[in-house]
Amino acid sequence: MTTPVTPVAPQLKDELDIVIPTIRNLDFLEMWRPFFQPYHLIIVQDGDPTKIIKVPDGFDYELYNRNDINRILGPKASCISFKDSACRCFGFMVSKKKYIFTIDDDCFVAKDPTGKDINALQQHIHNLLTPSTPFFFNTLYDPYREGADFVRGYPFSMREGVPTAISHGLWLNIPDYDAPTQLVKPRERNTRYVDAVLTIPKGTIFPMCGMNLGFDRELIGPAMYFGLMGDGQPIGRYDDMWAGWCAKVICDHLSLGVKTGLPYIWHSKASNPFVNLKKEYKGIYWQEDIIPFFQSVTFSKESTTVQKCYIELSKMVKEKLSKVDPYFQKLADSMVTWIEAWEELNSPAKSAPAANADAKKK
Amino acid sequence: MTTPVTPVAPQLKDELDIVIPTIRNLDFLEMWRPFFQPYHLIIVQDGDPTKIIKVPDGFDYELYNRNDINRILGPKASCISFKDSACRCFGFMVSKKKYIFTIDDDCFVAKDPTGKDINALQQHIHNLLTPSTPFFFNTLYDPYREGADFVRGYPFSMREGVPTAISHGLWLNIPDYDAPTQLVKPRERNTRYVDAVLTIPKGTIFPMCGMNLGFDRELIGPAMYFGLMGDGQPIGRYDDMWAGWCAKVICDHLSLGVKTGLPYIWHSKASNPFVNLKKEYKGIYWQEDIIPFFQSVTFSKESTTVQKCYIELSKMVKEKLSKVDPYFQKLADSMVTWIEAWEELNSPAKSAPAANADAKKK
Repeated sequence: MTTPVTPVAPQLKDELDIVIPTIRNLDFLEMWRPFFQPYHLIIVQDGDPTKIIKVPDGFDYELYNRNDINRILGPKASCISFKDSACRCFGFMVSKKKYIFTIDDDCFVAKDPTGKDINALQQHIHNLLTPSTPFFFNTLYDPYREGADFVRGYPFSMREGVPTAISHGLWLNIPDYDAPTQLVKPRERNTRYVDAVLTIPKGTIFPMCGMNLGFDRELIGPAMYFGLMGDGQPIGRYDDMWAGWCAKVICDHLSLGVKTGLPYIWHSKASNPFVNLKKEYKGIYWQEDIIPFFQSVTFSKESTTVQKCYIELSKMVKEKLSKVDPYFQKLADSMVTWIEAWEELNSPAKSAPAANADAKKK
Repeated sequence: MTTPVTPVAPQLKDELDIVIPTIRNLDFLEMWRPFFQPYHLIIVQDGDPTKIIKVPDGFDYELYNRNDINRILGPKASCISFKDSACRCFGFMVSKKKYIFTIDDDCFVAKDPTGKDINALQQHIHNLLTPSTPFFFNTLYDPYREGADFVRGYPFSMREGVPTAISHGLWLNIPDYDAPTQLVKPRERNTRYVDAVLTIPKGTIFPMCGMNLGFDRELIGPAMYFGLMGDGQPIGRYDDMWAGWCAKVICDHLSLGVKTGLPYIWHSKASNPFVNLKKEYKGIYWQEDIIPFFQSVTFSKESTTVQKCYIELSKMVKEKLSKVDPYFQKLADSMVTWIEAWEELNSPAKSAPAANADAKKK
């Protein structure tokens, strides 16, 4: 007699949304079905809103195209980018869940060194539900992982850690390179599986990639604005970088943790390096000023919430980066619009489901 | 017809010393013979100087016991610890080479996941000869490694990196835990091979373990003082931590890099946790003050060399840590003595080999 297997409920099933920006049919979900199907999807359709995006059967989703975004946000829709994956942050705003996992539609299930399919979502959840250690470096990496701990010399008062706000996953196969590196190393593939998760120390900025990313919306959501990119803007492919720089300095100020490392996804195809170069070239020289700017950001004591930090940051951006290019003035204004829109959709007073009801629900 | 294999000279053969502190016969060298035999060893014999330490045949070495240390340094020998592996730093001082690799005598050759013996020394040399990237985090770890590079968003002006001063290797099997963790988790073994080397970011202090450590003596040697530990001192097992804290803040000030990760060695046996607790317990509460102290250290512009930084640091230690315990006053004085002794043995004017000539050479 065999004992019937009791099905285990997927972790955080009702507390996590998967946000996917796309311009095409979501066939890539077939491969993710065993891991994603129990979760709710928020699909942000970029580009032509009349195009029909096919979603494989059996997935629970809501889908927003540009018309939906314009209708829901009205004039504030100007802060949401068009024709750039930066539009994904609209999905963060309309979600009502505590956790977000966002993934690109050219990312597939990777295999670990034993050949087993990696449940990327499960690893992100694990990263988010265990603390981070931003104040001191642990040489054996994540001390909360099974078989690991804090090493000799790690102050005991710091071993409780802090809440984790962001879990940044990596990519096997096509690495996340900029256009110049793509051009110089067209054949480079990432084949190295590094079996580690680590906290990015306080005070250290990092290049956050939006391809495979989890975060705690309640802790850091309003800082996850992907900026003004793509159509009508002088720059592209810096959306996730912008969010990462802003979110990291705010996490540092509010004592929240950012982890990077596992999980890996399989990044299937390299984008066109010539197109990328056109999108990136201003960013490549602007970042030489932007990075020192973020490295020197300090917030006032009054900035006790993510929203307040973000508004203060927008003022610093306007003041310090406008001399790099007038674009940053526009970006700083959009940062404020983003927060206004966030608060409109997420204030307890407003009927939150109203916005969602407009979307095409499955 | 087979082509005769041209023997490749071991890398840095005449520019690197292997420093080993010990109280026993060095049978452990047998396992390291294929990797260490071409190099010169500096053995620092701790404890009873009348004991004869046997070194396996075929190794080129010099050996110093306490009598040698007292004779060579005279009254300055007081800065070298007795009955503690902190005595190893005497070997750093008498070396005339550019690079040091130091290893404990209970560390054996580990195997990588494919079952191949890991040449730890070769990996340290690779780490030391390639730059570090302390100013910005690279999510794909060491960008100079084959198959890796800087990711999108990494500022191009920072891609040259800085010279690497320290290469901190890790341990399979027995992890480097403090006594409380040893007591709580007596059976924990490190079985996770993390295939990564990374730069510890600027501004981040780390717990440096002396078991498996490489460094560039010309760049950071005078900061590699392992403090006053063991016999006659109120503390033990914080020697490498002390060196690591001091060296890291000086590396940060002088724009030098510190790497951690590969290579692994096989750490064969756990030390006695009860003995360790006795040695460590003051350190365990002192470090709660010491870490914030080091996190706030800033050097003056005049401190342009490691020696100058170290003297300035000794003054800060005396001023800020003496209130934690009078021990730090003594330690601060010893830091000055250490630098005086270092300069005496390493000044170009003095006949450097004279000191070495006193040692028992093979």
